[in-house]
Amino acid sequence: MKLLRFGPKGQERPGILHADGTIRDVSALVADYGPESVSFDLLEQLRSAKLDELPVVEDSVRIGAPLSRTGHFIAIGLNFADHAAETGAEIPKEPLIFSKAPSCLSGPDDDVLLPRGSLKLDHEVELAVVIGKRCDYVSKADALSHVLGYAICNDVSERDYQKDRGGQWIKGKSAPTFGPLGPWIVTADEVGDPQSLDMFLDLNGERSQTGNTDTMIFSVAEIVSYLSEFMVLEPGDVITTGTPPGVGAGKKPPVYLRAGDQLRLGVAKLGEQRQQVVSRD
Amino acid sequence: MKLLRFGPKGQERPGILHADGTIRDVSALVADYGPESVSFDLLEQLRSAKLDELPVVEDSVRIGAPLSRTGHFIAIGLNFADHAAETGAEIPKEPLIFSKAPSCLSGPDDDVLLPRGSLKLDHEVELAVVIGKRCDYVSKADALSHVLGYAICNDVSERDYQKDRGGQWIKGKSAPTFGPLGPWIVTADEVGDPQSLDMFLDLNGERSQTGNTDTMIFSVAEIVSYLSEFMVLEPGDVITTGTPPGVGAGKKPPVYLRAGDQLRLGVAKLGEQRQQVVSRD
Repeated sequence: MKLLRFGPKGQERPGILHADGTIRDVSALVADYGPESVSFDLLEQLRSAKLDELPVVEDSVRIGAPLSRTGHFIAIGLNFADHAAETGAEIPKEPLIFSKAPSCLSGPDDDVLLPRGSLKLDHEVELAVVIGKRCDYVSKADALSHVLGYAICNDVSERDYQKDRGGQWIKGKSAPTFGPLGPWIVTADEVGDPQSLDMFLDLNGERSQTGNTDTMIFSVAEIVSYLSEFMVLEPGDVITTGTPPGVGAGKKPPVYLRAGDQLRLGVAKLGEQRQQVVSRD
Repeated sequence: MKLLRFGPKGQERPGILHADGTIRDVSALVADYGPESVSFDLLEQLRSAKLDELPVVEDSVRIGAPLSRTGHFIAIGLNFADHAAETGAEIPKEPLIFSKAPSCLSGPDDDVLLPRGSLKLDHEVELAVVIGKRCDYVSKADALSHVLGYAICNDVSERDYQKDRGGQWIKGKSAPTFGPLGPWIVTADEVGDPQSLDMFLDLNGERSQTGNTDTMIFSVAEIVSYLSEFMVLEPGDVITTGTPPGVGAGKKPPVYLRAGDQLRLGVAKLGEQRQQVVSRD
């Protein structure tokens, strides 16, 4: 099943991408998708509903982020060995955890805003994990049963803010629109093995990032289990799991994003995102 | 005005500490205090209510965290020069930003849970700021008008997780009960100048931390303004602003918390917290 939210920014309604390719409005069944509502019970409820009878939404509608908000927007750094190498960093011995401000969550095709004075805006196509059940000291073997589904995340980053302004990465990962998520959450049963998904990102029509989740240093199961030793994960938490090689900061010379740039990114089975870079007012 | 939440964990109701010293139940006026509800409009609504006529809550009631959840639980590191020195760190040139998992929020007098196998649990008495209005590129001069109020936060930390497990501090700042907040949010008008507040923390009846917010490197106004350059702050976001000297890691030899330890901490005008350290199951 594919969960999405549609409508103008701030007024999104919950929907699903139906098997017939149409978007169906499920707001008669659930008020919204967010930490208060996403759960395996909700999936059961949606699965047992007569989706054919739900209202069809017009194709041209804007798609928003698939959650009204993230409970916690967690990110894993340097989780692809070849990406770690391109940034000049050592391969982490344990997952490197940072977070993104919840206010950076954005629709999959919304403009990415260049912060005032920003000179080092960069892109990171990633596999994001949506938690569906509370995780507290969860074993690796049991970890994936706590995953509701997956979505594409562009872990938009400002490298100067991230690395040269005082140390902790959150500073360069949190500006408004730095968290495009979606277009939908694909439920875990539809995705199957999360460690065999092709990933790509095109900048202005040219391939910039290429990868596959099979080269992750720490698998989704390892990440969920590991995180649950250090913090309780809750339904609606989002974990974006690291980016493959090809980010702008890794190119020689570096290639940073500028107003007018066009991004297209995708992860197998999860759809695509398209963003334009626009200057902040 | 002092906003608090009372009742069993997970079933708290909103209240105020009335001028006559009693707790009054305000759940007839507002469903709960959280990111959805805290605002300057809410304060106006509460101020204009007939608080004398609201139900009195019995004194022995448990006090919970004063917010149902934090929108974003932000923290500032090394914001007292003498604390930076005791940890062997350089004085930051810009505010050092990290975050705590929202799931670590805890009542002011709830037990602090020692994570499994933890050997370096530590305490940090801090002044926390509760945001009441959206902040996006807010000037220093205008920053304090966005602050709803203040509360005590114990920025509980596991130093091994924080520093020796992969770099970013969030890993040692996020375990369940690592964010005791309260006992209440004191509105900004009652606190006045946030840069002249005495702070203390006693461990098993002996003074461990002593400080005053007048020795902060970056003031509350500077922190709010600075953060708003890197991320949008929203109502219900909490910023805990750094700890004065005397943490366990800074003592020679270091003194870490063990099961059975008793903490008492306070910030002038904001009340006190009392916690017992208890082992995780």
